[in-house]
Amino acid sequence: MNHSSKPTQNPEAAADEDPLWPATQHSAQQREAKRQAVLSAAAQLFNERGFHATSLDDIAARLGVSKPTLYYYVKNKEEILLGCVRQGLQLMLDGIEASRSEGGTALDQLTACMQVYARIVTQDFGMCLIRVGDEQISKPNRAELRRIKAAIDHEFRRLVAQGVEEGSLAPCDPKMTAFVIGGALSWIGRWYQPGGEYSPEQVAEHCLKTLLGGVLKR
Amino acid sequence: MNHSSKPTQNPEAAADEDPLWPATQHSAQQREAKRQAVLSAAAQLFNERGFHATSLDDIAARLGVSKPTLYYYVKNKEEILLGCVRQGLQLMLDGIEASRSEGGTALDQLTACMQVYARIVTQDFGMCLIRVGDEQISKPNRAELRRIKAAIDHEFRRLVAQGVEEGSLAPCDPKMTAFVIGGALSWIGRWYQPGGEYSPEQVAEHCLKTLLGGVLKR
Repeated sequence: MNHSSKPTQNPEAAADEDPLWPATQHSAQQREAKRQAVLSAAAQLFNERGFHATSLDDIAARLGVSKPTLYYYVKNKEEILLGCVRQGLQLMLDGIEASRSEGGTALDQLTACMQVYARIVTQDFGMCLIRVGDEQISKPNRAELRRIKAAIDHEFRRLVAQGVEEGSLAPCDPKMTAFVIGGALSWIGRWYQPGGEYSPEQVAEHCLKTLLGGVLKR
Repeated sequence: MNHSSKPTQNPEAAADEDPLWPATQHSAQQREAKRQAVLSAAAQLFNERGFHATSLDDIAARLGVSKPTLYYYVKNKEEILLGCVRQGLQLMLDGIEASRSEGGTALDQLTACMQVYARIVTQDFGMCLIRVGDEQISKPNRAELRRIKAAIDHEFRRLVAQGVEEGSLAPCDPKMTAFVIGGALSWIGRWYQPGGEYSPEQVAEHCLKTLLGGVLKR
């Protein structure tokens, strides 16, 4: 990646000059909120155009700020992608944790986790997690992301195994079944068009019904 | 993309100098076989490292030929990717056509098409189709690829609708059901490790069983 256009001036001073996002009297909270806005705009652009076709200039333009302002919140495009993917994964982890704390049977919890997963991949950060491969991210960070993905996958496998044990699910190889569930739900992030023919709720409902009940007539 | 390292000399003459792949007395058939070898090596590298992390030098090195030799068969990296993805799609189309010509019920044909799809995404070109997004491909070519993908998707929808009609499949929205089937099967190309724990046949068998029968106990 070429970052030769990085500003040489003090980025904070540059941000200071931006009438839209003045950097003066920035509390940590305000700064974080703006960093979030950068990540959101970037995720949308990555999803629309692809990671490589999106420049920092595009992200700045989408936010209506200058590129030097951007550098006050993020270091480079890889850091932005990492932030987007981390948030997508964190949303999943939080959703799974919430589904589990609701209690109920393994089937109840699995269904709730599937709903969470299907919903998140239709949103900016979740879609980014699916659409942009992690080959763009350098090795140590990639390893961290893969650990989180493995933890999510493990949770699905555990619930499938428990479901088989409680007698609600068909006997299966939980690892393979979790791959099928994760694959079908992840793919939503590849084909889903926000504002299109189906609402995220309809997509989730259809996908869950097909995965749980199967394609064959019962 | 930077192609400044393109050779200025006559590529055929350069290829001529390559002791491994002499260009003399090249029949069209021999040339096509070598172009195929370039595409195969490239697909493997794209799948292993990602499209952007793979250089023409890497592809030449994998084949044990010089970069000028490569230019005798392909113009640039985008053309290589396009060739790989086209082949992946063509394998799918041929497999679907063969499954259909076998005849049988809509369920028989759907099952055969699912098997074809699952097998192809574990192979180099099919995996490349799944792992490398088509954002890397320029617009007119991308439109062609999307037309072929839509034709494949349409075939799945048609078979699902026929299956519902013949009473073998559960009543459903064929479009959404085709997305679930295509998604779960496509995802195999993202996680499958050649030479790993499961053979391609085992993967296909597990995935088909889960999709057809469903996760819930019948």
